[in-house]
Amino acid sequence: MERSSKEVGVALIGSGRMGSFHGGTVSRRLRGTRLVAVADPAPGAAEALAGALDADRAYTDAAQVWADPEVDAVVIAAPARFHAGLVVAAAEAGKHVFCEKPMALSLPDADRAVAAARAAGVALQVGFNRRFAPDWQAARALLDAGTIGTPRLLRSLTRDPGGFDPAHVPPGTIFLETLIHDFDTLRFLNPGAEAVEVYAVADALVEPAWRDRGLLDTAVVTVRFDNGAVGTAEACFEAAYGYDVRGEVFGPGGTATLGDGRRTTMVFSGAGGRTAETVGSDQELFAGAYTAELAAFADAVRTGAPAPVTGQDARAALAIALAAAASVAGNRPVRLDEVTG
Amino acid sequence: MERSSKEVGVALIGSGRMGSFHGGTVSRRLRGTRLVAVADPAPGAAEALAGALDADRAYTDAAQVWADPEVDAVVIAAPARFHAGLVVAAAEAGKHVFCEKPMALSLPDADRAVAAARAAGVALQVGFNRRFAPDWQAARALLDAGTIGTPRLLRSLTRDPGGFDPAHVPPGTIFLETLIHDFDTLRFLNPGAEAVEVYAVADALVEPAWRDRGLLDTAVVTVRFDNGAVGTAEACFEAAYGYDVRGEVFGPGGTATLGDGRRTTMVFSGAGGRTAETVGSDQELFAGAYTAELAAFADAVRTGAPAPVTGQDARAALAIALAAAASVAGNRPVRLDEVTG
Amino acid sequence: MERSSKEVGVALIGSGRMGSFHGGTVSRRLRGTRLVAVADPAPGAAEALAGALDADRAYTDAAQVWADPEVDAVVIAAPARFHAGLVVAAAEAGKHVFCEKPMALSLPDADRAVAAARAAGVALQVGFNRRFAPDWQAARALLDAGTIGTPRLLRSLTRDPGGFDPAHVPPGTIFLETLIHDFDTLRFLNPGAEAVEVYAVADALVEPAWRDRGLLDTAVVTVRFDNGAVGTAEACFEAAYGYDVRGEVFGPGGTATLGDGRRTTMVFSGAGGRTAETVGSDQELFAGAYTAELAAFADAVRTGAPAPVTGQDARAALAIALAAAASVAGNRPVRLDEVTG
Amino acid sequence: MERSSKEVGVALIGSGRMGSFHGGTVSRRLRGTRLVAVADPAPGAAEALAGALDADRAYTDAAQVWADPEVDAVVIAAPARFHAGLVVAAAEAGKHVFCEKPMALSLPDADRAVAAARAAGVALQVGFNRRFAPDWQAARALLDAGTIGTPRLLRSLTRDPGGFDPAHVPPGTIFLETLIHDFDTLRFLNPGAEAVEVYAVADALVEPAWRDRGLLDTAVVTVRFDNGAVGTAEACFEAAYGYDVRGEVFGPGGTATLGDGRRTTMVFSGAGGRTAETVGSDQELFAGAYTAELAAFADAVRTGAPAPVTGQDARAALAIALAAAASVAGNRPVRLDEVTG
Repeated sequence: MERSSKEVGVALIGSGRMGSFHGGTVSRRLRGTRLVAVADPAPGAAEALAGALDADRAYTDAAQVWADPEVDAVVIAAPARFHAGLVVAAAEAGKHVFCEKPMALSLPDADRAVAAARAAGVALQVGFNRRFAPDWQAARALLDAGTIGTPRLLRSLTRDPGGFDPAHVPPGTIFLETLIHDFDTLRFLNPGAEAVEVYAVADALVEPAWRDRGLLDTAVVTVRFDNGAVGTAEACFEAAYGYDVRGEVFGPGGTATLGDGRRTTMVFSGAGGRTAETVGSDQELFAGAYTAELAAFADAVRTGAPAPVTGQDARAALAIALAAAASVAGNRPVRLDEVTG
Repeated sequence: MERSSKEVGVALIGSGRMGSFHGGTVSRRLRGTRLVAVADPAPGAAEALAGALDADRAYTDAAQVWADPEVDAVVIAAPARFHAGLVVAAAEAGKHVFCEKPMALSLPDADRAVAAARAAGVALQVGFNRRFAPDWQAARALLDAGTIGTPRLLRSLTRDPGGFDPAHVPPGTIFLETLIHDFDTLRFLNPGAEAVEVYAVADALVEPAWRDRGLLDTAVVTVRFDNGAVGTAEACFEAAYGYDVRGEVFGPGGTATLGDGRRTTMVFSGAGGRTAETVGSDQELFAGAYTAELAAFADAVRTGAPAPVTGQDARAALAIALAAAASVAGNRPVRLDEVTG
Repeated sequence: MERSSKEVGVALIGSGRMGSFHGGTVSRRLRGTRLVAVADPAPGAAEALAGALDADRAYTDAAQVWADPEVDAVVIAAPARFHAGLVVAAAEAGKHVFCEKPMALSLPDADRAVAAARAAGVALQVGFNRRFAPDWQAARALLDAGTIGTPRLLRSLTRDPGGFDPAHVPPGTIFLETLIHDFDTLRFLNPGAEAVEVYAVADALVEPAWRDRGLLDTAVVTVRFDNGAVGTAEACFEAAYGYDVRGEVFGPGGTATLGDGRRTTMVFSGAGGRTAETVGSDQELFAGAYTAELAAFADAVRTGAPAPVTGQDARAALAIALAAAASVAGNRPVRLDEVTG
Repeated sequence: MERSSKEVGVALIGSGRMGSFHGGTVSRRLRGTRLVAVADPAPGAAEALAGALDADRAYTDAAQVWADPEVDAVVIAAPARFHAGLVVAAAEAGKHVFCEKPMALSLPDADRAVAAARAAGVALQVGFNRRFAPDWQAARALLDAGTIGTPRLLRSLTRDPGGFDPAHVPPGTIFLETLIHDFDTLRFLNPGAEAVEVYAVADALVEPAWRDRGLLDTAVVTVRFDNGAVGTAEACFEAAYGYDVRGEVFGPGGTATLGDGRRTTMVFSGAGGRTAETVGSDQELFAGAYTAELAAFADAVRTGAPAPVTGQDARAALAIALAAAASVAGNRPVRLDEVTG
């Protein structure tokens, strides 16, 4: 069939919250992709999601994915500690790879993942979805046009809606899984520059009882870049008002502020004053960006064009996250070359 | 094939600006629909668009569409004067119908269209796309929840970007093709109420030279409803800043304002002050709404659920438009029952 | 004393809501003015307010004001039906006059007031305070600079906070006392143009029981100007969210929107979404404008410069109000020359 | 004279940019104060400003102020290095003191100033004007009401319009004169908490050539508080778009954002998109706050009520500034007790 031949066969690895969402995008929101398989080792999980999303097959072992000839590409949404290994295995099986952030939890793992993809000649794209959101793209366009000039100050923040279960949040999460988005944003909004030093403060303010177990739920990170710019990344695991992501880039030409946080632009004024609904989740705030990043990935797979967010981008953001964690541990500024060796 | 059997086969009738856009939505943005055919009597037009959108067939005669067994439904985007006749013919051929506004240019034609669809048992949906835009839906939700109460004042406005060619704008366009959206919005935001009297002023302020030929490019219409509410609809064919659609509904509980007009929520502050990009076209402003209305139509076709915007809605907005035109002609308020007989 | 000689001696006529406020402005917020006297026929009223505001004298008869040599100027804030007579008497006594709107309730009265001030060579300024508000001045500056071009569409609205007592609202209030501000705004934002025809709809939607007594609490007025522009003025006596005044002027160069309605620009996002406080009263919304108009009046008194809002402005807005009332009575558009003769 | 007896006689010390502005407030914008004298050692400076502001006397020596019996209170707007000494001298002369920030450049000086005022029983208020701005007060009201809860994250930023002359900016200015406002804001928005540790990065990004002379024009400071909250203060000496001051306080109940930066709320949409004017200077942005702080000071003088911003507030902000400077010098976090000893 001519039409089918154009479709990119995708397998989803991991059927949790983000996996389900990405699977739904492949299956329901994108054209030109086909959800061939869902893989998840948890009993019944892959089957349930495959059924819900009309995927052809459910696997409990990733090896089945590697062996499936109809799978052109994989979307990795397993727990973070498995990401790098899965990228390597997928690449070695000749599958194109879209990997949720963080691509790896250590720099050697990141290097292995990048090397495997390169050796296999497959596309490797990382899930820094904010790069695909309209405000972020518009600010980057101003930067690329020279309107803002060389950035002097940058900011990126992430605040999650409440309700997380501290028992299921590994130490380091705030840097490796949350702020890594903000570290990437700082890089995205400071094109061509790289971080040189990081200072971070972090604490357990939402769940003070978990401080001793290393769970940090609130953090502020200062990042110095090699072009002099100073960026601030900030996160908290509990925002009463929903999911809040904002940013700013300020240079000699002016400043661009990013992120609005409203669900719609409808505004109601009533006896309680003026009100607007706020966004409740990342999947709501970035619905379009999540679709756009997978569309870009599918295009890269189809056309051989380079993936728009690379393994090197993942590695660079990871290095900042590791430096931030080291900074908290030592309560001192940490140079990037201390962690990148 | 199971998967194909679920797809709704769509033929597009009319390959102009809105036709191309709707065709692209069917072909590229929606899942579960298939663009079977494009029909357009202009030599080569259907073929060109069919090629661009990967449609299976190109027709120059609508009768070919009626005869095509793979066509489940049609999207009518021909010039307005052909709409009603096409709705009737499509319905008689057993095709479900999505018709761009205005569904008809006279009330008898509107009645014929509605009757034909009912007799054939096909879905008939009209292209009042704003009902599917987030702000409009959010305001309606406040109304349905009783938060606003019975509306007292309503407003809806449409301002098109400049550059229209007066030679190609038939008289009546501002009421029948532009403000008809606003008349529908006033009804949508005043649920259960109907217009009883209309007063309209209109003039050729953009192209004064065309006033004598009856081209009115600027209009303000006051609509009284049977629940006491007073609505204002306003349009102009030329806005320097792009495509501007806004609305408001005000009742005892408060007021909801709709429409933002910004392309993104990124804001740039520079030497020229604070700036934000504005939206340039209806297709940009309502991209999501255009997709959503066709998705809803496809669902109605698939499931047999009632179409969310009916032929009666089209008729009611048309009656207001006709009353507005009569009001301008006579420079007096015109009761709806004068035009609906 | 040199310093005192520069002070403008002011008498306040009327000690009600606006009188108290203007008196407070003269006494507490402006420098260079001195509240010499408060006059009010109600027993004890003038005395009480004079005491509260440190005015030197309290009068129960306006004639005492005319005779007071320390009174350079009067601020008239009595009930509207007394305005014109007080303006005439004050002018004849050689006092400069600031008169709250409406300056008169009939065109002959307006003419008498204007003539008396002219004959006496005193300043006559009318309380169209919005002209002194920053947004209104900024929009007018864009008009004066030619940025907007000749207006095509205008809008001005007023919504009062709830709680009015219908027993104390004379018929015609919505046009003569409320919308007269909006009519002035439409003129202010359409410089050099004059109204030629008016169509108004009005109803008792807040207090339906009072419809029979002629109390109209909700109105929409369409005003055509001699330069083709069409303005809409809208009012309602009850807004759940406070005091709401907004406007818009749209021309070939673009559109300016006026009025924000927020008490501060502080925004709170909490579990109920995003909220902002709204303004509760005209005195809060226009606090600066009320001070600025009296400062301008005091300057006019001191320097002999022309008052920035004239008796002719008051007359022109009154004519629109009278035409609007006639339009409601006849349910037809009314030409201005029908009321101005 | 009864009326005069209520007036607070004020002497202005320093006739520069802020001195002129404060003098104008005393002389022209506030009621109940009288500008008795202007003092400035520069030849002719005091005389010129005294003439412009109708002050009674011009002095070239502050000792003349101390000896003037009509001077009840002084407004100190001399260069920062003279502040503490002037506060002490004024207090010893029995004059109430309003001192521009920073009140002192060292903690011992700050202690001396506080002690002198206390010993003399005079009011001592410091010019942290932002505390009097509506957004700041509204956010503080939310904090005082418990709506936000204990702050977790705070932010305050200051960006000045461009055009400063590096030759006249002493080292330390960004911490001691600019960010000291932000440090005070962080304290104001974290009521009852005190800073415990500071980390600062700063650089010469606007004027790189001056880096060697110690001029830092761009800085980001992280401040940890004893209640766990983390604040970020950020400043830059050059913003292309004017004077920009914003803030945020985020706690378990939600987040309040402060500062808008627009000159008016009038918005113009034209061919260049949507635009709004931005504020050009601190005196424009905080015009009302500057008046309000002096009104509060005058009230404190008149009534004996405590000044709303105290010498202790000045000392606490100064300590943060000194810690920030030390942090930059050592590139390490600095505990407050290291500088407060």
